[in-house]
Amino acid sequence: MTVWTEQAGAVPDGRRRVAGPRNSIATVCLSGTLEDKLPAAAVAGFGGVEIFEPDLVSSPWAPGEVRERCADLDLSIDLYQPFRDFDSTRQEVLEANLRRADRKFDVMEQLGAPLLLVCSSVAPHAVHEIDRIAEQLHQLGSRAGERGLRVCYEALAWGRHVNTYERSWEIVRRADHPALGLCLDSFHILSRRSDPAGIASIPGQKIFFLQLADAPRLEMDVLQWSRHHRLFPGQGAWDLPAFLGHVLTAGYTGPLSLEVFNDVFRQSDPARAAVDALRSLLALREATARELPVARARVGLPDLPAAPPLAGHAFVELGVDDDSAARIVDALRALGFDGPGTHRSKPVQIWRQGAARVLLNGAPGQNEASIAALGVETADPAASARRAQALLAPVLPRIRGPAEAELAAVAAPDGTSVFFCQPSAESSGWLSDFTPTPAEGSGAGITGIDHVALTQPFDHFDEAALFYRCVLGLRNQHSSEVAAPFGLVRNLAVADQARGVRICLSVSVLRRGTEWQPRVTDPQHVAFATDDLLATARAARAAGAPLLDVPNNYYDDLDARLAPPPALLTSLRELGVLLDRDAGGEFLHFYTEVLGGRVFFEVVQRIGGYDGYGETNAPIRMAAHRRQRRG
Amino acid sequence: MTVWTEQAGAVPDGRRRVAGPRNSIATVCLSGTLEDKLPAAAVAGFGGVEIFEPDLVSSPWAPGEVRERCADLDLSIDLYQPFRDFDSTRQEVLEANLRRADRKFDVMEQLGAPLLLVCSSVAPHAVHEIDRIAEQLHQLGSRAGERGLRVCYEALAWGRHVNTYERSWEIVRRADHPALGLCLDSFHILSRRSDPAGIASIPGQKIFFLQLADAPRLEMDVLQWSRHHRLFPGQGAWDLPAFLGHVLTAGYTGPLSLEVFNDVFRQSDPARAAVDALRSLLALREATARELPVARARVGLPDLPAAPPLAGHAFVELGVDDDSAARIVDALRALGFDGPGTHRSKPVQIWRQGAARVLLNGAPGQNEASIAALGVETADPAASARRAQALLAPVLPRIRGPAEAELAAVAAPDGTSVFFCQPSAESSGWLSDFTPTPAEGSGAGITGIDHVALTQPFDHFDEAALFYRCVLGLRNQHSSEVAAPFGLVRNLAVADQARGVRICLSVSVLRRGTEWQPRVTDPQHVAFATDDLLATARAARAAGAPLLDVPNNYYDDLDARLAPPPALLTSLRELGVLLDRDAGGEFLHFYTEVLGGRVFFEVVQRIGGYDGYGETNAPIRMAAHRRQRRG
Repeated sequence: MTVWTEQAGAVPDGRRRVAGPRNSIATVCLSGTLEDKLPAAAVAGFGGVEIFEPDLVSSPWAPGEVRERCADLDLSIDLYQPFRDFDSTRQEVLEANLRRADRKFDVMEQLGAPLLLVCSSVAPHAVHEIDRIAEQLHQLGSRAGERGLRVCYEALAWGRHVNTYERSWEIVRRADHPALGLCLDSFHILSRRSDPAGIASIPGQKIFFLQLADAPRLEMDVLQWSRHHRLFPGQGAWDLPAFLGHVLTAGYTGPLSLEVFNDVFRQSDPARAAVDALRSLLALREATARELPVARARVGLPDLPAAPPLAGHAFVELGVDDDSAARIVDALRALGFDGPGTHRSKPVQIWRQGAARVLLNGAPGQNEASIAALGVETADPAASARRAQALLAPVLPRIRGPAEAELAAVAAPDGTSVFFCQPSAESSGWLSDFTPTPAEGSGAGITGIDHVALTQPFDHFDEAALFYRCVLGLRNQHSSEVAAPFGLVRNLAVADQARGVRICLSVSVLRRGTEWQPRVTDPQHVAFATDDLLATARAARAAGAPLLDVPNNYYDDLDARLAPPPALLTSLRELGVLLDRDAGGEFLHFYTEVLGGRVFFEVVQRIGGYDGYGETNAPIRMAAHRRQRRG
Repeated sequence: MTVWTEQAGAVPDGRRRVAGPRNSIATVCLSGTLEDKLPAAAVAGFGGVEIFEPDLVSSPWAPGEVRERCADLDLSIDLYQPFRDFDSTRQEVLEANLRRADRKFDVMEQLGAPLLLVCSSVAPHAVHEIDRIAEQLHQLGSRAGERGLRVCYEALAWGRHVNTYERSWEIVRRADHPALGLCLDSFHILSRRSDPAGIASIPGQKIFFLQLADAPRLEMDVLQWSRHHRLFPGQGAWDLPAFLGHVLTAGYTGPLSLEVFNDVFRQSDPARAAVDALRSLLALREATARELPVARARVGLPDLPAAPPLAGHAFVELGVDDDSAARIVDALRALGFDGPGTHRSKPVQIWRQGAARVLLNGAPGQNEASIAALGVETADPAASARRAQALLAPVLPRIRGPAEAELAAVAAPDGTSVFFCQPSAESSGWLSDFTPTPAEGSGAGITGIDHVALTQPFDHFDEAALFYRCVLGLRNQHSSEVAAPFGLVRNLAVADQARGVRICLSVSVLRRGTEWQPRVTDPQHVAFATDDLLATARAARAAGAPLLDVPNNYYDDLDARLAPPPALLTSLRELGVLLDRDAGGEFLHFYTEVLGGRVFFEVVQRIGGYDGYGETNAPIRMAAHRRQRRG
């Protein structure tokens, strides 16, 4: 076990420190005021902050008081930012800007902030000639240097004349002042599709600061992209491990600092956002060291426990209330499940068919049915749990009866518990905590769990995707955006290489209001696998399963679009089965009604190499669920 | 009074019909399922709908049943859409597409939809040569024509080979089939910055359909722009009256149909969205006829009663509960207001200073203090009320005592009542309903109401802006986006030419959640004008007004940024006054604390031609209000 994880485990107040370069965060990343932001960053485990000027300006704390609060929180103040539109073709503006800088140096001295970020000018009177900018920055560097301060110059992607790191570096090189260096921000560099490989040849000691942000790939004005859509590393589309690798190869040894803002983070609970942020940095450090072994020493990467291989879904546990329990049990029976087996010490039933296992937890306090927990089969449950904990996953307390299996569990950002289970646990593992399951179901051909679909709380979609992926060692497998009856829905499936574990996350593209149809598109579901969907559907229908009605119009459209063989079309129509096709193959699936609260079931068959989730049919399901709820 | 307004007034069930071309709406504009959408469109007063295919496909109603429902609702079905990716370089794909079209013609016959929208292909195998596309569309037109149906062809702005209306028209011209015409969509044309003037020379009878949408000016991928950011006419940046003028000049006589989708409408109450949509069309018809008199007959424009000139704010009425009433009264007194005068028959007080009048309404049922009503002084209150009603504003019932003034009022989308008042109403007008105001305040130099600032419900920001603007005859005067402590905030001020009436609307760029600081940035306020802000601030402080504390850091930053004269800076700092500058002049202002519920006051002085609202200082205020609420 490394120093890092020892620390993680040992620090009782939730503070976590890492070896190697400091993890820092700009206060602009977090919602609220300094009173909210500084404790949030500290408690999550950051070692430093960049103070965003508007946060200071609106604060009742004098700079010296901010310095003390940060010291109390064990946070270093690494940077004060931003200083805008410094260089100028007009002498009187330049002089006003030097006066402005002197005032900010006063503030920095009181703050104890050693470094000022100056970003390239967007003003109409910005200087074009790089020698002249260099000369003006030299003046600024001299003034800073005289006070023991430093200045780092950053090329904004939308700077008027300076908008690439190559140009900002050339200016810093020509300015040639020891108190003047470069600030690199992955957003500004990668959004312009600059090649970051050139960074590796910049002298490391001239890179004074590094800001990290990821982003989704968008074709839009880069200023708006930056303002509304940045993401923490690993949540967007860019190769940040490669980027960081170049910076470390150059010899940069300063803080790894996040500067990320988007419409969601600007509103989210800063305490949660800070944990999400630090997790993203930990995962980035791991990925960088993995991909760039020469930088490993520089990253100071503690080996996170590697993610053990996964064997599949062990179980899904539903929290049920009295109303929904009966409907869910009836549905499981009609879908051919055997049960119930009962837990030795807890009010938990197990229902089984093939490798599919559904636990129903009737513990009091459940408001409505929902997916309470996922069990994943891992080759090394203890290592999985250690990794999760190292990645800041809250470890859940477990109450274990005598001779019962020990199951480690952590809480995902969406509130779902994730259990780490031994595979083939029939005799000795967690399954032995249950009485044998009576073979009362007839069996309908269900072989296991294909995927679990979890609608995410709006504020935590990107957080959840990163969490499931880095904690469980999954990858982004499939994404889509669906125009559903009550608004656009984003879907992202994360899965392991072998597709044994698939978790589908979804969220509305806009936070839902309460004025109109709240929650109608938000159910969660478990999708079971079968090798003969039509047979399973037939058996389920015969047994009275509450399958969802699919409109005739759907089949007319399916005929027009995909022209399935008439006999198949007839069966689909009869059985309420839906069809999708992708380049790899076909997908047959059917849904149940919502069975209470937020839960329904799906049964799916993948034919050929089909690797999607039938999202094209999701609006049909949502409209039908709405009819069911409206009654 | 025109036929149209007679009808508007006469139809008791809220159904409104207009003369001239039918007002239609695509079902994709509205949230929900057909069960929600069709009644919403009909009740708002639309005459026709475009049926969006996914709405039909997910509906349990067979096409014939949809036809009957529409007939019951007096809605014509004008179009079925969209049919995608028709033309193809691959013969087997073309044949599959012709088969698909035949199936859709079956549906259209059952629906009673006469027209199919075919949009230009985005498929990899789309045809490049326009003669070949024309030939394939000719085949499609023939099949449609044989069944008494028609097809209109639309160039998607992101079509693979056909993405301008000029090109789609050239294809339709060459295809030369009577059942094949053109569909024009303002979004696809204006988003590509095509010159719409050329439309006027297309033979009108070959324009089979017209879809209207506005949009904000954005630099982004046009497909994403279209998918997420369309707006109803008048809510965006485009000159839709000019666009519609060209189409009408061409001789188009078909429906004026809205096809608008954005992330907000996709989630909003469809009944409200439909009213907003129809209001936008009515305003567009008026603006088009005004700017293009030759098209007046063709637009079939009924003269809306013109918006009478406004003289200023007559009053602001606050709804107050017991807790807030005392604090607000104390604040008004300390700000130098005289009062209370009391209403003859209602539990309403009046407080006055100069031309500023604040009504406090203590009627029971008020949960918390809020701005309940605005009074505007109009040259013709009755005409203002008729115009508002013609623009679908709900008219509010008034209870009037004997010999009391008659005040017409309508409800704005944000719930605020808007009263139309006679100017100089001292002796005979609404002011005579109040007992004279005791001159108990000392007077602090307040001369009137500068503006009223209303935070909007998230779903109705664009609706509200259009409402206030077109009902009151105001214009967009000033807009900004502010990075505030709890998320980005959009501001839009609407005002009359003389700046007598200024209404400032604001909304968070993302709907707020409840997880973190709900409502903290949402207060509403009244801004009073003074000609000597420092004197007013001094008097208010001396009288103990609950003025907001402004951090010292603000003044240090102000000094660094704007370098006001040292004596002024000292006064600002002493008095808690904020400063802003724009090209035209300077703005001095101060705020009170939140006085209960959602309400606070501001006092402002405009120096020179300053025409903004000091938004740059809004984050200072929000942070201070947060401290007040927390502390």
